Amino acid sequence: MTIHDTARSLPATGSQDLPEVVRAAFERVESLMDEVVDSDVVVLRDASRHILSAGGKRVRPRLVLLAFAAVGGENPMMAAPVAAAVELVHTASVVHDDINDHGVVRRGRPSVNAIWGRTFALLTGDFLFTKVYELMAPFKDLNVILADATVALVEGETLQASAVKDNNFTREVYYKIIALKTAALFRSAGELGARLGDGSDEQIQALANFGFNVGLAFQIVDDVLDLTGDTEQLGKTAGIDLEQGRGYAATYEPDAAVTALKERVLKGGDAIGEAREQAQGFVDMAVAELDALPASEAKDALIGLAHLIVERTF
Amino acid sequence: MTIHDTARSLPATGSQDLPEVVRAAFERVESLMDEVVDSDVVVLRDASRHILSAGGKRVRPRLVLLAFAAVGGENPMMAAPVAAAVELVHTASVVHDDINDHGVVRRGRPSVNAIWGRTFALLTGDFLFTKVYELMAPFKDLNVILADATVALVEGETLQASAVKDNNFTREVYYKIIALKTAALFRSAGELGARLGDGSDEQIQALANFGFNVGLAFQIVDDVLDLTGDTEQLGKTAGIDLEQGRGYAATYEPDAAVTALKERVLKGGDAIGEAREQAQGFVDMAVAELDALPASEAKDALIGLAHLIVERTF
Repeated sequence: MTIHDTARSLPATGSQDLPEVVRAAFERVESLMDEVVDSDVVVLRDASRHILSAGGKRVRPRLVLLAFAAVGGENPMMAAPVAAAVELVHTASVVHDDINDHGVVRRGRPSVNAIWGRTFALLTGDFLFTKVYELMAPFKDLNVILADATVALVEGETLQASAVKDNNFTREVYYKIIALKTAALFRSAGELGARLGDGSDEQIQALANFGFNVGLAFQIVDDVLDLTGDTEQLGKTAGIDLEQGRGYAATYEPDAAVTALKERVLKGGDAIGEAREQAQGFVDMAVAELDALPASEAKDALIGLAHLIVERTF
Repeated sequence: MTIHDTARSLPATGSQDLPEVVRAAFERVESLMDEVVDSDVVVLRDASRHILSAGGKRVRPRLVLLAFAAVGGENPMMAAPVAAAVELVHTASVVHDDINDHGVVRRGRPSVNAIWGRTFALLTGDFLFTKVYELMAPFKDLNVILADATVALVEGETLQASAVKDNNFTREVYYKIIALKTAALFRSAGELGARLGDGSDEQIQALANFGFNVGLAFQIVDDVLDLTGDTEQLGKTAGIDLEQGRGYAATYEPDAAVTALKERVLKGGDAIGEAREQAQGFVDMAVAELDALPASEAKDALIGLAHLIVERTF
């Protein structure tokens, strides 16, 4: 079996798969991001729009808006700036990652780094981070939630770079890294949506947990795709994780020579099967959290999103 | 005359020159910054504390606290987190600058970049930016002020890099750059302090203008010192601006070869004298704004700070 044969894919930026109730807000997220990065300083504007208009899966804003609707929030449009802010945190980190990793392809296009060079890529990432702050400024008490998640993201990226440098990429460290660099932001997306939608404490907790578990699954699958996918299909440089001695597969032999490890993982296939199983386990835990919610189209869409995250091929 | 003979210097991080009323709050700024950068991820903690404990002039937090006291604010301690946040915006930008400029000395120590390398320096700068956001989260309506200033700072840095790249470092562009990259944050420091201290609209405007003009003067003098100072005294790599084709002096011949320009500026001395005159003009404008404030020790300290900014040698 090849994974590609059986898997469905997440739609890119389209809203057609979303429940009617959040569709306009999801489209507003796109226009908000486009507007907020406008600047007289044309490099910042152009580089930001380059990476934003390339799409990406927009999983985090989907999560914010669906969580909002799933707790019975009435006007999803009011959550659009927060959904945009969460996506900009991710986008800023992606732009900075591509500097550190020398990634030249991102979302199927040349990376900001590849086109504008390192200096402007660094400043574009900073610009996107400051725009997060600008978008969130009116949201008062919610700021601390996204601030904490952003701190965690940077800590996770740093822990990853440290573990690679120190030859210490164990399974335990790996889980700590993905909890910080990916799952914390997913968690905040669920929590922010549920809070904005005025969910009960139990619902807020359930959607935070849902986000966290989905985030873990998402990152594990991302790491699998780095090994099994190709650059064209992924829209980003494939194989970069293992080459740099990180990702799920690297935890098998944290001190192995990278080339030997890559060969072993790709031939043996044990890491890939096991990783997908782990991811499925987190998705199952995520979905179980949703028992705290009444039946709704948004709840169904969250369940669908969680499953697609494991099944996706890019 | 050498500038060094006649100039006084700003004290480093000491609070002894400040009015009694803000001294404890100024000391709290230091401990707050130290606390907020604590992290299990030791590289982030160590690199952040390395750059923070090296001191620096702490002009921006001084400005926040003095503005607070000058409008009659009663408990300067409540302004300490905002003063710390403003200083962290500056510190984050300094860490990222040293990556782009290959600066190896900062605040009299090896730069973060020089010790930990580019990847960790980039992440440390990101970490400091996220900590700004964390510190400011409780301050609700004030967030938008610091967010705008931070956006301006990044825009100014980018405009500078663009102007150098495009050989377009005219006097007009120079003023636009320093307004964005330096004066906007100084402006926000004055405004934030005055708002927190519950100043009148007129006082808030006066302190915002004071900060803006002091910021312009500060940057011009910084550019002069880049030419006339030496690395040891400045605590950062001297001559780096002109070498990279930017700064006040570069505006004389935006398209001149850098070596020729440097020779001309240093021999002729016209750029330096004129720059200090310009800076003095901005300080005079800044001080005139303070007519809107009643007499106080804090007001006197603001005037003293403005004058020291032109007279300083580092």
